Amino acid sequence: MAMQHTPLLMSTLMDRGARVAPEEELITVTETGVRRQTYKEVRDRAHQLAHALSGAGVKIGERVATFMWNNTRHLEAYHATAGMGAVLHTLNFRLSDTDLEYIIGHAQDKVIIVDVEQLPALEKLQGRMPSVERVIVATEEGFEGWQTTLPNAIDYEEFIEGKPTQYDWPMIDENSPLGLCYTSGTTGKPKGVEYEHRSQYLHTITQCMTDSLSLSATDCIFGIVPMFHAMGWGMPWAGTMLGAKQVFPHRFMDPVRFCEIMSAEAVTMASGVPTIWQGVKSVVEAAPGNFDFSALSRLTCGGSAPPPSLIRWFYDELDVEMIQGWGMTETSPLATISRRIAKRSQINLSLDEQFANVAKAGQLMPGIELEIFDEEFNPLPHDGESVGEILIRGPWICSEYYHDPQPDKFHDGWLLTGDVGKIDAEEYLIISDRSKDLVKSGGEWISSVDLENHIVGIDGVEMACVVAQPHPRWDERPLVLMVLRAGADVSMEDVIEHCSSKFAKWQLPADVLCVDEIPMTATGKMNKKQVRANLDEQGYVLPDLR
Amino acid sequence: MAMQHTPLLMSTLMDRGARVAPEEELITVTETGVRRQTYKEVRDRAHQLAHALSGAGVKIGERVATFMWNNTRHLEAYHATAGMGAVLHTLNFRLSDTDLEYIIGHAQDKVIIVDVEQLPALEKLQGRMPSVERVIVATEEGFEGWQTTLPNAIDYEEFIEGKPTQYDWPMIDENSPLGLCYTSGTTGKPKGVEYEHRSQYLHTITQCMTDSLSLSATDCIFGIVPMFHAMGWGMPWAGTMLGAKQVFPHRFMDPVRFCEIMSAEAVTMASGVPTIWQGVKSVVEAAPGNFDFSALSRLTCGGSAPPPSLIRWFYDELDVEMIQGWGMTETSPLATISRRIAKRSQINLSLDEQFANVAKAGQLMPGIELEIFDEEFNPLPHDGESVGEILIRGPWICSEYYHDPQPDKFHDGWLLTGDVGKIDAEEYLIISDRSKDLVKSGGEWISSVDLENHIVGIDGVEMACVVAQPHPRWDERPLVLMVLRAGADVSMEDVIEHCSSKFAKWQLPADVLCVDEIPMTATGKMNKKQVRANLDEQGYVLPDLR
Repeated sequence: MAMQHTPLLMSTLMDRGARVAPEEELITVTETGVRRQTYKEVRDRAHQLAHALSGAGVKIGERVATFMWNNTRHLEAYHATAGMGAVLHTLNFRLSDTDLEYIIGHAQDKVIIVDVEQLPALEKLQGRMPSVERVIVATEEGFEGWQTTLPNAIDYEEFIEGKPTQYDWPMIDENSPLGLCYTSGTTGKPKGVEYEHRSQYLHTITQCMTDSLSLSATDCIFGIVPMFHAMGWGMPWAGTMLGAKQVFPHRFMDPVRFCEIMSAEAVTMASGVPTIWQGVKSVVEAAPGNFDFSALSRLTCGGSAPPPSLIRWFYDELDVEMIQGWGMTETSPLATISRRIAKRSQINLSLDEQFANVAKAGQLMPGIELEIFDEEFNPLPHDGESVGEILIRGPWICSEYYHDPQPDKFHDGWLLTGDVGKIDAEEYLIISDRSKDLVKSGGEWISSVDLENHIVGIDGVEMACVVAQPHPRWDERPLVLMVLRAGADVSMEDVIEHCSSKFAKWQLPADVLCVDEIPMTATGKMNKKQVRANLDEQGYVLPDLR
Repeated sequence: MAMQHTPLLMSTLMDRGARVAPEEELITVTETGVRRQTYKEVRDRAHQLAHALSGAGVKIGERVATFMWNNTRHLEAYHATAGMGAVLHTLNFRLSDTDLEYIIGHAQDKVIIVDVEQLPALEKLQGRMPSVERVIVATEEGFEGWQTTLPNAIDYEEFIEGKPTQYDWPMIDENSPLGLCYTSGTTGKPKGVEYEHRSQYLHTITQCMTDSLSLSATDCIFGIVPMFHAMGWGMPWAGTMLGAKQVFPHRFMDPVRFCEIMSAEAVTMASGVPTIWQGVKSVVEAAPGNFDFSALSRLTCGGSAPPPSLIRWFYDELDVEMIQGWGMTETSPLATISRRIAKRSQINLSLDEQFANVAKAGQLMPGIELEIFDEEFNPLPHDGESVGEILIRGPWICSEYYHDPQPDKFHDGWLLTGDVGKIDAEEYLIISDRSKDLVKSGGEWISSVDLENHIVGIDGVEMACVVAQPHPRWDERPLVLMVLRAGADVSMEDVIEHCSSKFAKWQLPADVLCVDEIPMTATGKMNKKQVRANLDEQGYVLPDLR
């Protein structure tokens, strides 16, 4: 041994913010304003929480579940469990009771920390969570007199009160489990992805690279993406390691409130799915000049691909860089990143050319490998033309699901992502679609994502959803559902004409429906499975088959 | 196993630059101009070199030595050895023949790649390198007809010619050795520090964090610090991973040439020891306006602490941030970093207050632990007052020396750095001195570094060196040797008066000598051991003892 083989533990990173920036602020949005705490306070409370959890019988490797919005108590749960070697299981409270019952039982959660506002949702599971020994209720103003039918419940503050503010984090193996996050698959039971200390450590450091998200201690990070989605895309870990200011929206998931908070707290970077940023854009357009975004420098946008027109709007109107990221729960999630200027050869490109690159899913993070394969797992050329299924591998990529290996989701050490795409000569990944959402028409493939992103560029179209509809001659044909802005008037002919400028005739929509809303999944994506089911139920048929 | 346990290998990172930025430039300074190559070319040549080395019998874990300036062939040697699993042993050609003979024998180097200009120096070792089976001569313009008395020599280009441009890098253990670098200790034999793949991988990623050196693919990196000093401070690895433009000065280590290159190639960041930047400052002051530093944004400065006045000059005159780093060969080397604005609480400080922070050695990089201890290894408080020996540990810190464990340099998993210092309440490290260079006066300690940095702020003083001189009453007293700018007139009284503003009376120099030069070590630091030996030889005694 020539160099020290120090285990890569998140406990090493999580105490750092409070050491280097003890007085920096951690802020939770409340009903009437915000709650301000310092790094030192939250760090001490995290150590107290670890003592309390340990006192409640939680041992190294055991699961502590959270049923929480984004707030500093949720951050304390991240910090405490990472430090003490427990496993943080972040429950998505938008899932169905059936799924939640399955997940809590499958994970064998020992303790659940629940935001008081979510108590009614959790109470629906009463008697269906035999592994759970303790419920810890995190209260907020207006809910002080909470009561619950759940057994063995205790107030969070009472739970940690008087506990020592120093817990000597144990030295454990770096491949020990750290977190658990279930994906709401469209088929079968939810599957658990178990993050490990080493995988999250590498992900965290990589996320702070200048060429990744450029996260810095000088940032004010507004993590809107739920902390139950792939560990909040890693923001809570990275921000806390750096000692950056962090703002947590709690349950106030309203675009007007987002704009107010970003102004008032001088947010420099925020994370969210495209629909969040569509909402913010609408608010700003409705009341331009009401908000001060001068501190804001970048947004990270993932979950699904943001429309190029949205990326451009934020740049043109607010001088804000929307960083597109591609990944999934199974990839921790950061896999590729798209920046406006990712390398020197792009510095002198025109803005239009730069944004053509940003529209791609981006370049692979260092340390990760990605490849496109045909159906026999032959690698395809990186020519920007060949389309194949995207496989990925590396130190923060899932190798099997938790207690449910699912070998068909893996091939020879690679994760099958379920996305299809191409890679160009300079190693940019371009996502075509989820493999199950491609429209197979006349032996060719039509990307629903490409059509959607183009249609949403029409003035008045707020959202567009493309699904395949069966067709006896062409196999499948693309159908568009669109949500219009109030008062907007966009016809099927307008959509067809707009698409004709970019797509071949056989790729054009076979029909366009105006709808009030598109059903969304619990993770904020368009629920195409539901869309297709609704169409079936309504007995929808394409116009030329009626 | 829930996440993939992909080994952290430098081969994964080193091929990346050529993938993401195949046409980016790698530039070597030559006698008459520069040689331009692309990433793709150099990557292909590195793979060819690996085949050639393999053909010459080099196996995984065996040492390939370089006796080279900074240039793209040296980079190819980094890339090829890291890829194939061989160990790159970077020889410091400024060491004595005796030391080189010892080091080459101790490392059992199998092959040496030598720059043609350094052939005469290597030939002095003829017959004293029994382990070396092959000498590979990297030629430059003007040296095409080289000849050597060394046996079994071959031209570098002939060595790699016709070899395949794809070497399938083997998957090896991440704790396999990667590089070897001997420190020229002031006592005893040189000691080898062996870097490993994992340690260098973590060091490389951390170096690219925004809050570290902010290295980016959009940078043009000018690595002046020799590639034989702690792997060129990691710049060749990081730059190549990112696909940044890199410029290598080769043997043209002249401050005028540096200024010309930085102008012509639009260098954005450069690395070097303080004397390099003193030289650049002198050139710019002598011919202000001759050079264009508009692209230059930051310099990294390490090896020894840069005087605060120098840091400030680069900021005030060139709008360039000098990033102070502290570390040593044993720490890979990056341990602490000092930036002008390292956290949010510093944003609104005055420039003077910001530069007071930059004068400190800085904040610890994430993942590393550092502590100050008294002589019985009790940790001392982080109060900015208590001074103790600095111990450090973490995943890129040396755990023992190569085939020469030296247990007295380690304590309970920590490396004893040999530096003494203090840590303030916000975890800034402040280096007082090398423990052996402290002046012990009347039971108190005087920092030679503090005195030197203050004295070099006097207009006309180019360099200052403080050493202890024995004194029967006070134990030791500080003696100043200073080099003046041509024509400058600075008296002992001027120095004493200047120091009186900051130092207590008992800390003031006991004598001030003007000298023509300060002897330097092979690593570019002031050779205080030599200074003290010279004074002894001259029979120097302090004024009050004469």
